[in-house]
Amino acid sequence: MSETFYVVPVDQHNRLVKAAYQHRGYDEAEAKAAAEFAAHASTHGIRTHNALKALHLDHLFGSGSSGCVPGAKIEKVSSRFAAAQTWNANKKLGQAVATEAMQACTEMADTYGVGIVAVDQAFHYLWGGGYVMEAAQKGYLAYTNCTAALAEVVPFMGKAPTLGTNPHSWGFPTTEQLGYPIVIDWATSVVAMGRVQQLAREGQELPPNAAVDENGDITTDPKKVKALVPFGAHKGYGLSLINEIVAAFTGGSLPTLRCRDYVAEEKQTPNFFFQVIHPEAISSGAFVKGRNQQGNIKAVLDDILGHGNEKCILPGQIEAAAAKRTKAAGGLLFSAAEIEGFNELATECGQPTWDLSSLKLES
Amino acid sequence: MSETFYVVPVDQHNRLVKAAYQHRGYDEAEAKAAAEFAAHASTHGIRTHNALKALHLDHLFGSGSSGCVPGAKIEKVSSRFAAAQTWNANKKLGQAVATEAMQACTEMADTYGVGIVAVDQAFHYLWGGGYVMEAAQKGYLAYTNCTAALAEVVPFMGKAPTLGTNPHSWGFPTTEQLGYPIVIDWATSVVAMGRVQQLAREGQELPPNAAVDENGDITTDPKKVKALVPFGAHKGYGLSLINEIVAAFTGGSLPTLRCRDYVAEEKQTPNFFFQVIHPEAISSGAFVKGRNQQGNIKAVLDDILGHGNEKCILPGQIEAAAAKRTKAAGGLLFSAAEIEGFNELATECGQPTWDLSSLKLES
Repeated sequence: MSETFYVVPVDQHNRLVKAAYQHRGYDEAEAKAAAEFAAHASTHGIRTHNALKALHLDHLFGSGSSGCVPGAKIEKVSSRFAAAQTWNANKKLGQAVATEAMQACTEMADTYGVGIVAVDQAFHYLWGGGYVMEAAQKGYLAYTNCTAALAEVVPFMGKAPTLGTNPHSWGFPTTEQLGYPIVIDWATSVVAMGRVQQLAREGQELPPNAAVDENGDITTDPKKVKALVPFGAHKGYGLSLINEIVAAFTGGSLPTLRCRDYVAEEKQTPNFFFQVIHPEAISSGAFVKGRNQQGNIKAVLDDILGHGNEKCILPGQIEAAAAKRTKAAGGLLFSAAEIEGFNELATECGQPTWDLSSLKLES
Repeated sequence: MSETFYVVPVDQHNRLVKAAYQHRGYDEAEAKAAAEFAAHASTHGIRTHNALKALHLDHLFGSGSSGCVPGAKIEKVSSRFAAAQTWNANKKLGQAVATEAMQACTEMADTYGVGIVAVDQAFHYLWGGGYVMEAAQKGYLAYTNCTAALAEVVPFMGKAPTLGTNPHSWGFPTTEQLGYPIVIDWATSVVAMGRVQQLAREGQELPPNAAVDENGDITTDPKKVKALVPFGAHKGYGLSLINEIVAAFTGGSLPTLRCRDYVAEEKQTPNFFFQVIHPEAISSGAFVKGRNQQGNIKAVLDDILGHGNEKCILPGQIEAAAAKRTKAAGGLLFSAAEIEGFNELATECGQPTWDLSSLKLES
């Protein structure tokens, strides 16, 4: 809590991030989508998926290798189904694809009650929670899952990592009553590989049942970790499988080859799945005690968090608190180390660096 | 493994179960749906949700109290959305409603690519996995969730049980290549309350982090258990919340009042949510190495269960093995204690009892 944060105006942040993406060959619209999505993440305190992480991933797996193709065009597969679309993203930047896909789902939901978009040949979209949060802020129930870049997770009772950390994200339109949307968003591994590396650096132990060593045996020593384990044993394994199976129905290829060195004749791209439901489409209209739909949600949530559960929090509450803090500060909050990261990007793309002494400190 | 099983022909089972439901006031179609669904569960080795459990639940919460109304008619809420329906089930028998809802979803998916049905004022549907399994056997991707009868689960970081065990069930059409559909189906608590009672009877301990005592502290002593805990900490909590939130959008009322003694002006009924996706609606058509969609699923699953993971199993595999065993035996398999349970039902509804000595033993 004693960490010092500098306040970076959103415009200033977006200008640099956009320039960094354009420098790597992305077009105006892609760079804009990437910058805005990064600002959205930083606004909500998502430090693990901010612009620095996005551009680092782009370097490792994206335009820096052949995982992402700047300026790629989305092809929509022709279909006889009016509430479902399948897209070939042709390795277009994930944030641009995801934003457009969620928009397409929303339009289908407006007409049909529900809309889905499955995306083949995708690139990392960073933070699934961000897309469902935006849709929920617009008043919709939203869901997304994707196959994660690398196969780092061992199936239940297995030894070898053949599954991605495969996250699921759900957003619910609860802003009217709670002030923020409920966003349930997590990977299906107990921890991320980044967390393992952090614990190794800090000389700390892993939680139990989070990772295995090279023999497939559970280890709490982060230095011995060879692969991750799904949360909740067979239940998390099932949740991880869902992403792989939906991807396979869409066109995804073998999980263990994903984002690895080139293998002839196999796709190595992740897949996305998006879904939006219009809240009126699942409403009976029959809420008791004269409540409307939003009032009913509030009554149910108050019941769940009542009866002695007043210390519980709702998923999305931490992100909402971060957004409030960002708003109060009047800009995005970054540590000195993060500002340094942005300045490396600025140097890379020939933009002015940010002078720490000229930035406001969070008071 | 040494338990002895008797073979009961499906016709004989269904005749008795149907009569038992009709004796309790259910109409011909409801009784038929209940009998067939019970046979479906027993075929797949689901001993916790067979006819005996179904009729016991009916006694406790259904026609035996006022939770389920024999002969009730489903009202379909008028809607401008073509791929989504909301039904008021008017407390009709869950198995009949769920079977019809999944059928409606399938028809919408045939036309729109996806179809959803939200059900208000529902009664227990027993085994969500059974409905998605049937839809998957017909070639569809299917999903259902429901709010469980009683609030027995404590939110993450809470003390009081305000959530149901709220299960999720997904079915995938993999029969062509695997011989059975993948079915991912579980409750969001670590264990069921029935399991706690069983461990208490047997003098055994609970797994860690499965339940809390009256102070809200974790206990492994089944005799001290006051409430259950979600699996996977905040992740399982989020999954349980999803069912409550979807239910609240549909029309469901306060979780803590569900299926409890009558409270004026509050609904006390569970809710259902069903969804079906047509596999062609999420297909890019672009599968590598000349695979078709089903061949691609097989290649992906082989990759996941390869590389040293050959001992892993797929969700649905155990149920498929049970179905094979049932088929080989030529009828449904029940223990002597279960046959006794059926004979109590037979006596209740004036049907002939099953003579153990006349039943074939599983060889």
